[in-house]
Formats: sequence, structure tokens, C-alpha cells
Amino acid sequence: MPDLHELKQKVYSANMSLPRHGLVLFTWGNVSGIDRDAGLVVIKPSGVSYDELSPENMAVVDMSGNAVGGALRPSSDTQTHLALYRAFPEIGGVVHTHSTYATAFAQAGAAIKPLGTTHADYFYGEIPVTRPLKKKEIKGEYELETGNVIIETLKGKNPMNIPAALVRGHGPFAWGKTPEEAAHNAVVLEEVAKMASIVYSISPVKGGLTKAAGISRALLERHYLRKHGKDAYYGQ
Amino acid sequence: MPDLHELKQKVYSANMSLPRHGLVLFTWGNVSGIDRDAGLVVIKPSGVSYDELSPENMAVVDMSGNAVGGALRPSSDTQTHLALYRAFPEIGGVVHTHSTYATAFAQAGAAIKPLGTTHADYFYGEIPVTRPLKKKEIKGEYELETGNVIIETLKGKNPMNIPAALVRGHGPFAWGKTPEEAAHNAVVLEEVAKMASIVYSISPVKGGLTKAAGISRALLERHYLRKHGKDAYYGQ
Amino acid sequence: MPDLHELKQKVYSANMSLPRHGLVLFTWGNVSGIDRDAGLVVIKPSGVSYDELSPENMAVVDMSGNAVGGALRPSSDTQTHLALYRAFPEIGGVVHTHSTYATAFAQAGAAIKPLGTTHADYFYGEIPVTRPLKKKEIKGEYELETGNVIIETLKGKNPMNIPAALVRGHGPFAWGKTPEEAAHNAVVLEEVAKMASIVYSISPVKGGLTKAAGISRALLERHYLRKHGKDAYYGQ
Amino acid sequence: MPDLHELKQKVYSANMSLPRHGLVLFTWGNVSGIDRDAGLVVIKPSGVSYDELSPENMAVVDMSGNAVGGALRPSSDTQTHLALYRAFPEIGGVVHTHSTYATAFAQAGAAIKPLGTTHADYFYGEIPVTRPLKKKEIKGEYELETGNVIIETLKGKNPMNIPAALVRGHGPFAWGKTPEEAAHNAVVLEEVAKMASIVYSISPVKGGLTKAAGISRALLERHYLRKHGKDAYYGQ
Repeated sequence: MPDLHELKQKVYSANMSLPRHGLVLFTWGNVSGIDRDAGLVVIKPSGVSYDELSPENMAVVDMSGNAVGGALRPSSDTQTHLALYRAFPEIGGVVHTHSTYATAFAQAGAAIKPLGTTHADYFYGEIPVTRPLKKKEIKGEYELETGNVIIETLKGKNPMNIPAALVRGHGPFAWGKTPEEAAHNAVVLEEVAKMASIVYSISPVKGGLTKAAGISRALLERHYLRKHGKDAYYGQ
Repeated sequence: MPDLHELKQKVYSANMSLPRHGLVLFTWGNVSGIDRDAGLVVIKPSGVSYDELSPENMAVVDMSGNAVGGALRPSSDTQTHLALYRAFPEIGGVVHTHSTYATAFAQAGAAIKPLGTTHADYFYGEIPVTRPLKKKEIKGEYELETGNVIIETLKGKNPMNIPAALVRGHGPFAWGKTPEEAAHNAVVLEEVAKMASIVYSISPVKGGLTKAAGISRALLERHYLRKHGKDAYYGQ
Repeated sequence: MPDLHELKQKVYSANMSLPRHGLVLFTWGNVSGIDRDAGLVVIKPSGVSYDELSPENMAVVDMSGNAVGGALRPSSDTQTHLALYRAFPEIGGVVHTHSTYATAFAQAGAAIKPLGTTHADYFYGEIPVTRPLKKKEIKGEYELETGNVIIETLKGKNPMNIPAALVRGHGPFAWGKTPEEAAHNAVVLEEVAKMASIVYSISPVKGGLTKAAGISRALLERHYLRKHGKDAYYGQ
Repeated sequence: MPDLHELKQKVYSANMSLPRHGLVLFTWGNVSGIDRDAGLVVIKPSGVSYDELSPENMAVVDMSGNAVGGALRPSSDTQTHLALYRAFPEIGGVVHTHSTYATAFAQAGAAIKPLGTTHADYFYGEIPVTRPLKKKEIKGEYELETGNVIIETLKGKNPMNIPAALVRGHGPFAWGKTPEEAAHNAVVLEEVAKMASIVYSISPVKGGLTKAAGISRALLERHYLRKHGKDAYYGQ
């Protein structure tokens, strides 16, 4: 088994960034990271409070979810993380939270539309919401099916361009090239969701959003592409 | 009289967790715990600020509310706590707060529906709101009647499955196996209420909530039962 | 001139409690206190940041607003405070802030109705909003007229029972027996306004508030009177 | 090249005030200041986190945007700042943020009307929102065109009387006589936007805002002019 010391440190740091940004209450969040060469995933241990986390007590699992060393059980969301790693070979980190505003959009069954350039700086289109899980998916391998419905929702999209999705009635998952980037995207998602909730609440017309709101395809492209991809030049 | 040192320490700690989680302004909250064998309840003293609380100055009352030792008067909500302890033998701790979002739902006279799995992780169904108290209940033994209307509202439900209720026009009460768990449930209730308020405010259709919102019975069961009861396996 | 050391200390402490409770940005708030025997009012100096306040640099004015010693100019809201002291002999402290939620109600031109017992614990009825000031009042002795319109709005009410009012398009003024109590009431007002704003935003029916919301006269009386007046017994 | 030490210190301090007031996540904000005699602008370096800022690592550019000394690239918003400095000779500092509430108004395509005196204390009329940028502006010199559309929006207005604008679908820019004043105005703008969002969300009538809301021209003038201009006397 390879020395995962560096990855454990990164996953630990990314986990600790969640309460610092106000994204988690109690233990309601988890970050993982993958070592693709070793075929191993490091993830927050189950039910452990953030005060007690350390790089050393991170859980390690193989790509089927079998614990590999370590005294603590991996997060019960592990199968969702693994499904995303298998489907999206570009990603190196996954985050799940119940952050307040993103979760409210998931509960409302509403995708987050690109209403502004804050969104476009990170997400190259709307942040989608999954369909509701079917009864047999819920009663079956629920956590795995949660991963599957995210993958289904992202079908035809590049997951690096839309690095988050809302699981309907549940909450957000975000990802990135590294655990740190995944956690960063989860923080951005929450802020984008908060902004969108304010836009909805101040929009006076029936049906919610004013026609005035939302950005053009050209503006979406300009902001996303000036920050990502080969011609990126952006930095505030 | 038994040594209640350990219970006083627990009730003290649970009281102190309320301001730490932003649930109370000034002295607007109280936690109690019960020693069922001794028939005694430890509760926050009346009108004392959190800065001045200590395990030693917690008030102690018997099951009728008579003070048993201690220099400070018990919280004026004591009779509500006692009514809940008498009616719900499973519970070991009770919390009352005026936390902002849960209180707003109580003021709106609106139960909190299970809109997401955050709710379902802790509450096996909607968090109910009581009927308004009648004039004679208000003018009579008001604090006792406040307990009675909660008990009436929970009738036919297992209070361990729905560990909180909203007293209409007043605010939330929560409970649990221990004072710590009761306080934990009060924090969750506030977060669930905040999420629900956002869902309502962004839902564009008339009548408030979109049809899309809310979770299925199957999802409610999955989340509640994976965390509670004999087959629990959950931990984030 | 009497030694106002104690009153200066109290007015200083009450001023400092405003930023601690999140009620003021920059210098947007002021507290005063009165020595009725001496006919002198101690008030925050004008435009001084909270970091630089001290008991010694509080401004002192007589009942006409003339500075009495002290190097710093009194708050430009001094004439409003003085009008309230002259009209309400029971009060010993006055507070003005632009606290976010109370100011939003003032901007909306909406009184805060007694929607819950949190309100009733402190305010024995709705927190009123003044009429708009007339052009000549605005162009004349504006700060004095601001006091006058509050007094007009409270006409027929006991200012100790309704210890705050919203100046339309401007913001809240609160008062109390002491500067500390006035500041306490300003904090409660902001929380009550926040709760009310949530009640409005989640109430799904046209016209804003559901019929379900609001408390009965009996509940208003019970909560106000168990905390205030000769038979008070309340303490959480 | 002149010694810009003092200006760098001021621009650094103003940049650091943004996270302290909760206006920026990560690196989402920048402040600049100008030395009109030297024709040089000091601005936050691109993509540098606030933890790593220092007066010494501020970027310096000439009026065309060419870097003048310094190891770090200037903010990618530099051309927007420069356009404002060229068009508005009175201003000495410019700020751009994605602060939550002001950005939500920009996303909603809604100007912020003068609903209260908090607004009138700083802005002598509504805070305007720009038209959407045209496709060719977005695809062309985007950051320069962002400045141009602000200038177009302010046409016929005195930029010192309306020291901020919302770029539609993007976010706020604010300015002032100094970098510190520009940052101060950005903080006020965010608070004014938050208040306005609450006013909208509690206003029960169709079309959003109640008729009751908003202030008269006379009140707007009184508050703006008692704080600004030759007869100013205001200080809370």
C-alpha cells in the first residue's frame, strides 16, 4: 500500500475548510480525494466531529469501498463519492455538504440558473438538479444510486465545466481536480445559491424571476473562458 | 437527595451550547434534564445570563415543580418541561428557545414539512405546530397548558420520532434522550426551519411551495431509519 | 455642574453594546441617558467611531441642546433625543440605530404587528411607524420634528409599554428606564423585526400574512404582564 | 517614478477592509487608488489572496494599464478602474466586489431606489444598473467596455453624488475621493442593498414594493445635503 500521507493531509485540510466557511453544522459534510495510480480514496471518517479530525484518522477505501487500514469507518456517503470517481476520470476530489442555500434549491427541486458572472466564473451553465430517486433506488443501494443519478444528470456535459449538482430533496455535491478545488467549488456554489435566492425574493413579477434577470450566452462564455481553459487570463 | 452533580454538568453544558450555536439572545432559552430514578429535574435558573451560569447554580425541582435546594428560582417555563417529562417517559432532556427561524414558523402558524433529507435525518415526518391556546388556558396555568397543547399535538405519534414541536405564536420546544441530544435537536430544527424558509421564498408559484418540493415517503423512511433504530448505519 | 461620571459610564457601555449585537455599521447609532435632577443629557459625540469612544469623551448637553463642557460635538440626532425626554418623563435612555431589519420595516412604511410572544414579552401592542414627515418639517428643524412625529405617533399610548417606534423612511428609535434598557430594547426590536420579515416571506397567501399568523389579545397580555408590572414573575 | 509608498499603504488598507466587512469571498474584490500628478494607479495584484497582500506587493500601472515595476500582475479588472479614473476626474479610489446583496440586484437587473435615509446619507438618488453589454462589447475589450457602460449609465449625473453603480449581471463598482472612501461606499452599498431586499420581500402587494415605501425628494435632499456639501453638519 502506497504512502498516502500527502493525500490524507490534503483531504484533511479540505474537510476543515468546510466549517471555516460556514458550510457545515455538526458532522454534515465530507470531502474525499483519490490516488488514481493506487486506486485508493481517502475520505472523512463516519460521524467524527471536525474537532477530532486529523490527517491520520482519515479513512481509506479501495474503489469498491472496502476499508484499507485505518481504525475508523468511512463516511456513509462513500459509495456516492466512488461512483463519481469511476464516472468522471478527470476529478481528484469530491465534496458533499448540506450547506443552507444550495440545499434549499435541492429541496425546491430547482436548478440554479446562470444569473450572474459570479456563477459564470465557475460554472459553464446551470447547476442542475437531479430527478427524484425512484422508490426502488431508495430502497436499494441508496448511496450508490445517489451517485448514479448525478452521473445521469451530467450526461452529455463535461463535469469539469459544471463541477457541482444538486441531488433533489437532499443537497449539493461538488467536485474538482483536487480536494481543495472541490471544497472551493462547494463554497462558491453556496454563495451563488444565496445570491440566486435573493434575486428570486426581490423579483416582483409572477413566476418569480424578472425577465431582466439572467446573463447572455456571450457573457457566460466570456467569464467562464477568461478563467478556465487555455486562454485564461483572469484574476481579481 | 441524590448527588445530581453529573446531571447538573450535562444540563449546564447543553444550556451553554445554545448561545454558541446562535440560538438565543440574552436569556431567551433553557435546557433541562431529568433523573427519573430520583424524580428530579435540573433546569436553568430563571433570568440568569449565560455568562453567569455554572453547573452549581442550576435549579433543581421535583416533578411538581417544587424547588429542591439551590438558591435560584427555576426557569418560569419549568411547568412546560415537567408536563413533557410526565407525558413522554422516553425523554431525558427538554429545550426551549426563541430561535429565529423556528419561531417565525411558530408565528406563521405553519408546521415544517419534510422538504429534504436534512429534515428526515432527524424528524420522521413534519414538525407540527400546535393549535392556538384558548383564552382560559392562557389565563389559567399558562406554562402547564403550553406543555399540554404540545402533548395533545403529538398524540398518536412517537415523541422520539418527532423530537420537536412549535407552539403557535410562541416558539419551539425540542427534546431527546439526554439534555445534549435535546439541544442538538433544537439546533437542527433551527437549520431545517431556515432551509424551509428559503425554499418558500424562492418558490415561484402561487400558494407558496412548488409542487416539486418535498420528499417522498420512501426517502423520508430511508434517511430516518438509516440513522435511527436498530439497523442504523449512518454517519457523514 | 454635577459629576456625571456614573451616567457617562452607563451611556458609554450602552453605546458599545450596539456594535457587539450587530446593530450598527460604522457610526450609525447613538445612545443617550438623562440626569433628570440636573437637567442634563449625556450622548454619543458626533461622528466618532466606536473604537475611539470612552466614558470621558461622551458629550453633555442641557435640555435645549447646548453643549455643557466636553470637547466633542454631540450627535446630530440630539434634538430628537431631547424631544423624547421632554415628552416622556418616565424614560431614562434613548437609542437610535439603522439596524437592518427594523430599518427595512421603517422603509416599507409598515408597523410591526405582534406576531408572537417574543414581541409580547417586550411590546404591549404593535410597534408603530410614524407618518411621513411633511416637506416643511423636513426643511425646518428636522431632527426636532423627527422627535415630534414619534411623540405624535405614541399619543394615547404609554411609552413604557411600547418602548420603540419606527420613523418612516428612516429607522428605529427605542427607549427605556435606563440607557442599558433602551439598548436592550433596540436589540429586541431588531430580532422581532427579523422574525416578522421571515413570517411575511414564508406566508403564501396574497396580501402577505396568513390569517393564521398573529397572537390573540389574551396571549399578548399574558406575556407582557408576566414580565412587566406589579405581578411579574417571568424569567427564562 | 515617484515614491508611491503612502498610496500603496492606503490601497492595501482599503483592500483589507473588504473581507473584514464580509464583502468578499476568496479573492473576489479589488480596490485601487490614483496618483493624479504622477498619472499612476495602484491596484490589488491579480488572484492574490488577502492573507498574502502587503503594501509592497500592490501592482502599479500607468493610465493605459502598462505595469510599472512590481513583480505581480495587476487585477484583471484594471481596465475598468482606469476607464473610471479617466472619465471621473474627481475620484481618487475605485472598488469592485461581488458582495452578496448588491450583486443580487445587479443580477436581477434592478436599480436600488432610495427607500430610506440610510441610502440618502450616501447616494443622492437611485443607485443605477447598467444596460446589458452587447455581444460585441463582451467579445471585444470586455473590461474596458465594463467601465464604458458605467460611464454611460452615469451620464448627466455627478459621480460624487452617486458613488456606485451596478453592472448588470455582474456586480457593483463603487468609488470615492480616496481608496478608503470608495471601500466605505462599497460597504454602505451592500447594507443598503440588503435593506432594500428585505423591503421587497416583506412588501405584500403585487408588483413588489408597497406604495408606502420610498422617501420623498425633500427627505432625500435633507439627508444627503446635511452630510455632504458646504453646509454639512451631520454626525451620528
